[in-house]
Amino acid sequence: MLRTAIVGGSGYTGIELLRILKLHPRANVVAVTSRKYAGHSVGEVFPSLHGYNDLLFTEPDVSYLSKSAEWIFTAVPHKAAMSVVPQFLDAGLRVIDLSADFRLRDRRTYETWYQAHTAPEQLDKAVYGLPEIYRKDIAHAQLVANPGCYPTGAIIPLVPLLHSGIINSQGIIADSKSGASGAGRSLSLGTLYCEVNEGLKAYKVAEHRHMPEIEQELSVAAGKPVVITFTPHLVPMTRGILTTIYARLAREVSIGKVLVAIKEFYKDSPFVRVFPEGAFPDIFYVRGSNFCDIGAKIDRHTNTLVLVSAIDNLVKGASGQAVQNLNIMAGLEESLGLDTIPLCP
Amino acid sequence: MLRTAIVGGSGYTGIELLRILKLHPRANVVAVTSRKYAGHSVGEVFPSLHGYNDLLFTEPDVSYLSKSAEWIFTAVPHKAAMSVVPQFLDAGLRVIDLSADFRLRDRRTYETWYQAHTAPEQLDKAVYGLPEIYRKDIAHAQLVANPGCYPTGAIIPLVPLLHSGIINSQGIIADSKSGASGAGRSLSLGTLYCEVNEGLKAYKVAEHRHMPEIEQELSVAAGKPVVITFTPHLVPMTRGILTTIYARLAREVSIGKVLVAIKEFYKDSPFVRVFPEGAFPDIFYVRGSNFCDIGAKIDRHTNTLVLVSAIDNLVKGASGQAVQNLNIMAGLEESLGLDTIPLCP
Amino acid sequence: MLRTAIVGGSGYTGIELLRILKLHPRANVVAVTSRKYAGHSVGEVFPSLHGYNDLLFTEPDVSYLSKSAEWIFTAVPHKAAMSVVPQFLDAGLRVIDLSADFRLRDRRTYETWYQAHTAPEQLDKAVYGLPEIYRKDIAHAQLVANPGCYPTGAIIPLVPLLHSGIINSQGIIADSKSGASGAGRSLSLGTLYCEVNEGLKAYKVAEHRHMPEIEQELSVAAGKPVVITFTPHLVPMTRGILTTIYARLAREVSIGKVLVAIKEFYKDSPFVRVFPEGAFPDIFYVRGSNFCDIGAKIDRHTNTLVLVSAIDNLVKGASGQAVQNLNIMAGLEESLGLDTIPLCP
Amino acid sequence: MLRTAIVGGSGYTGIELLRILKLHPRANVVAVTSRKYAGHSVGEVFPSLHGYNDLLFTEPDVSYLSKSAEWIFTAVPHKAAMSVVPQFLDAGLRVIDLSADFRLRDRRTYETWYQAHTAPEQLDKAVYGLPEIYRKDIAHAQLVANPGCYPTGAIIPLVPLLHSGIINSQGIIADSKSGASGAGRSLSLGTLYCEVNEGLKAYKVAEHRHMPEIEQELSVAAGKPVVITFTPHLVPMTRGILTTIYARLAREVSIGKVLVAIKEFYKDSPFVRVFPEGAFPDIFYVRGSNFCDIGAKIDRHTNTLVLVSAIDNLVKGASGQAVQNLNIMAGLEESLGLDTIPLCP
Repeated sequence: MLRTAIVGGSGYTGIELLRILKLHPRANVVAVTSRKYAGHSVGEVFPSLHGYNDLLFTEPDVSYLSKSAEWIFTAVPHKAAMSVVPQFLDAGLRVIDLSADFRLRDRRTYETWYQAHTAPEQLDKAVYGLPEIYRKDIAHAQLVANPGCYPTGAIIPLVPLLHSGIINSQGIIADSKSGASGAGRSLSLGTLYCEVNEGLKAYKVAEHRHMPEIEQELSVAAGKPVVITFTPHLVPMTRGILTTIYARLAREVSIGKVLVAIKEFYKDSPFVRVFPEGAFPDIFYVRGSNFCDIGAKIDRHTNTLVLVSAIDNLVKGASGQAVQNLNIMAGLEESLGLDTIPLCP
Repeated sequence: MLRTAIVGGSGYTGIELLRILKLHPRANVVAVTSRKYAGHSVGEVFPSLHGYNDLLFTEPDVSYLSKSAEWIFTAVPHKAAMSVVPQFLDAGLRVIDLSADFRLRDRRTYETWYQAHTAPEQLDKAVYGLPEIYRKDIAHAQLVANPGCYPTGAIIPLVPLLHSGIINSQGIIADSKSGASGAGRSLSLGTLYCEVNEGLKAYKVAEHRHMPEIEQELSVAAGKPVVITFTPHLVPMTRGILTTIYARLAREVSIGKVLVAIKEFYKDSPFVRVFPEGAFPDIFYVRGSNFCDIGAKIDRHTNTLVLVSAIDNLVKGASGQAVQNLNIMAGLEESLGLDTIPLCP
Repeated sequence: MLRTAIVGGSGYTGIELLRILKLHPRANVVAVTSRKYAGHSVGEVFPSLHGYNDLLFTEPDVSYLSKSAEWIFTAVPHKAAMSVVPQFLDAGLRVIDLSADFRLRDRRTYETWYQAHTAPEQLDKAVYGLPEIYRKDIAHAQLVANPGCYPTGAIIPLVPLLHSGIINSQGIIADSKSGASGAGRSLSLGTLYCEVNEGLKAYKVAEHRHMPEIEQELSVAAGKPVVITFTPHLVPMTRGILTTIYARLAREVSIGKVLVAIKEFYKDSPFVRVFPEGAFPDIFYVRGSNFCDIGAKIDRHTNTLVLVSAIDNLVKGASGQAVQNLNIMAGLEESLGLDTIPLCP
Repeated sequence: MLRTAIVGGSGYTGIELLRILKLHPRANVVAVTSRKYAGHSVGEVFPSLHGYNDLLFTEPDVSYLSKSAEWIFTAVPHKAAMSVVPQFLDAGLRVIDLSADFRLRDRRTYETWYQAHTAPEQLDKAVYGLPEIYRKDIAHAQLVANPGCYPTGAIIPLVPLLHSGIINSQGIIADSKSGASGAGRSLSLGTLYCEVNEGLKAYKVAEHRHMPEIEQELSVAAGKPVVITFTPHLVPMTRGILTTIYARLAREVSIGKVLVAIKEFYKDSPFVRVFPEGAFPDIFYVRGSNFCDIGAKIDRHTNTLVLVSAIDNLVKGASGQAVQNLNIMAGLEESLGLDTIPLCP
């Protein structure tokens, strides 16, 4: 059994890691930290997490964790992550970091969008943890930077089409709609039930921190710098990100060819499901699962390709993807412990 | 008091007309039809509609309605509307039609997207009932074609910018997110609670019937044919349409100038509220009201203008707008009976 | 025009007072306080509150408020209320307090459930602001203690039946289900969207502070001490309290008689709506309105009367009722400014 | 592998059976019927049901099913069930029926609440499929009548207390709150999204068909006839039933003793979780799982025991319980394939 520890176990991604790992046949959680709940059992704090009655939340003690576990999931906010991750690396552990701290390869970009980076030497070594693209590098990485939720939903459908030159690399628009769990479990007026329910809004229009992360990966795929227009929205639901993407076709192509190109690119990726022509994803079909569903249509009268992707932001957009990375790093089958059926309805 | 009748009073737009007109100081509802509920009182069928205990639903009898009322709201599905509207016109009544049947001026376009038109002679005479644009024509119209919900949210923010040439008329994308009431009150699997709740999807991608309606009005504003990419989405909430619009700037301009252009264009329109720079609409702020809220931002790194509009689809997107049209047609103040405060939270 | 001021204008009851009073034909808001938003305009902070662009939130300065206004709504938490209310009373103003501080006539009861009372001399003078019961006293009161939301929904259906001896005063059970707005707008983990949505729970079982308030009023109606079992629940919706009440019949009686007894008791109360036999209230039918809807059924096989009441907790359960009290205190028609139609759907 | 077939696979309980059985290590679905979707693959109709691309919906052909499968789940409406179940029994198959047709042992009771029974000879043979009570009988049954959703949530917490005489068998009240999936997937106005969302109502007050089913089992436990007051409510959420139960204590007892009595009774029941004193269940903690969570408190001032239970109506209230029954009937471990972790948030 892989002995894993979760640093920051009381946020939604931490809870979700606990949920997923509980049923993992080859990994278990030997330690989980939470300053807030230290000393209390996981099962007591979160009655949904059945079977964790004997696991106590502890203070985040690197030395204790390094002795107990071989694998670390850091599910703490950015900035906190970059201060603790290097310590685990130094101790020889392998780390999957769910924060944004090691996702951007370019230090200046990171510092433009976040703050000064205190562990810049890791930026080169960290592997961007999108298994569908970087599977091989992930296998050998000591530090995997688990992608952001919005980037996961935007990058997966676009990479095959940029890579193959089917779409124009300029003028791409990603209009994303996220459930409220993406905002996390910390207190804020904007995520109170009564402020989200029956509301709907765009936020951080053209200035969300996930934008440079998306652009970084699209640029790799296109082989040249790609800039996009990115608008996140907050939707009254708990889980899920639906991303509607608009791109211009670089050449005359049928929708069948577009779908085949995506399908072919991901033929060895068990979590990417490409819908047949005329069918489109729905958050409904992915909730609780690690799938990334994709549908597409060509609007002939404007020559625009419309792509739609759906993920569960807490699973494929965070903790499920982290476990997928764990599997790859440990040489296990990629989908181990992740072959759940979406909860629908 | 204006004597109005509602033909088709048991759908959401009919109920909403009853709600709004109940408090209208200069109009009342003298008849309301519903085959389903004929013989039952409005207050009995819809306990929310306080004060309607003495008004009974009746069968749709044109001759009776024509004698009882001077003003007709037709809130029946398209196709049904075009068979009944001409009869009221012939009887000399003035009609506000909430269906799609008289919105498209071009018969061929109508027949491409709907079916054969049985009252084509009215297409020229009908006035498109968007008061913010056609206020003067509406005042004298015998037949007003009340706009669709999606078109209302897309046309209002775009017209001033196309009219002034601030944005390029090509490449406009409208990504709309609607609450479930837009699908109406008829039975369908797709609008069951459990099929909508915690789901989110795009539908009728690039083939929704509101697309030609939007294009018709944008073409008028631009003075040349405009085609757009339009993607409607179904969101788990009851009321509201948020439309996120992407357009390319035709010339170097500040966001301040963009906002002023919209504000100036609508300076006599009491229901258009333009948000200051940096602020964006939320369905939360318009629910139950006739407002169309607008916010905008320029994404400098892609040279894209992002516009966001929010309306309550049942009010500004349907019944509120219909009453606004009634006011104008009757020579009353445009906002009479519509100066409610949004219900928030 | 009545010049009113709202102390504590940034919580949900404060916002709701602003919403309701905006359309009140005989009252307006001349001042509103909020430490948090002092210096900002109401319209800027709450874009839903149309028409308040010129009203600024201020610090709560009693002397300024006392000069500006004649009527005070205190919408601050308990404890804060009892420190400020006496100052307004001393300045000769009339006060409607929405907190719990003056609802319990018995000081010891108050101190058992809350904390030491710092203005006990007002407990006798304050009138319990349930207009349906205390209309006459309210008219002359200087201080009205606006009832709690749960008590409003529980007391109104029960008083006529206890008063007439139709039901047994012992063994009454009130099972209440509230939307999340009842928990207020302050930050707490339990009212985050993702903690409420798709959840449902009982809380403060048999120990909620509204219990003694309900018992106080039922005891008055029964003419002897009444104790009840009271269980509040949190439901994933924004507004509304549905209370299901179980009581034993004291004598053989038909459901028709029960309904008539309630109806008769409230024949001069415009906001109490008694449903016909077989029909039951739904939050759906009262949202945004000041109604208290009531339905009833006798379960013959257990000889139990089941009563169901529905209110909008922010309107009849708080701010609407406060305005109703204002109307009565000012000698205006009780329903002035409150004759809205529920927003449905 | 157990070869199972699902008759009626397109309703919510059928879909849920497909979901649960997909991951069952010792059972699989060899056939599933649906008149509506016959000829279409399960994966095509329900994209959430991953891995079912090769399984086609078929017409309900008893002879074909009897040859293909050894185990039958009937997930069709009552009345339809009693016409088809005997045919499978005659063919020697073992059947778990999710309808109400075989739950009531007394034919007259069945016919009072439903309609004439066409297979009354099975009423005696069928075993009521609540494993926590009838585990031993289920093991050998050919026909198991899977309990109703409301009964499951009401019976489990009450049986130990009636059995031990801790509570009085008279005067029990069960106030249940159900999510909308309990109403099924068939079309009805009352389950449209806009009719459920932001609404809340009691329905079938004291006349719901699950009442005699609850009373039947409580009577067995008490050893004498028990009648209860039962009020179901519809709550705006998809899954879950929270039942708040009020009972009078038959003797002086501590809450600790009450909780121990329940815990002890279910010590071999892996899905019953009894909460510690002061803690209460939340639908939040059981969603997607087969748990029945129970909490309790004694209201000393009225001498009332308040019990709260929470289940996922589609799992423990239907399909999960059916699979639990399958496991027991097949001699497998009771929790096989059901040891999921609730999806939270």
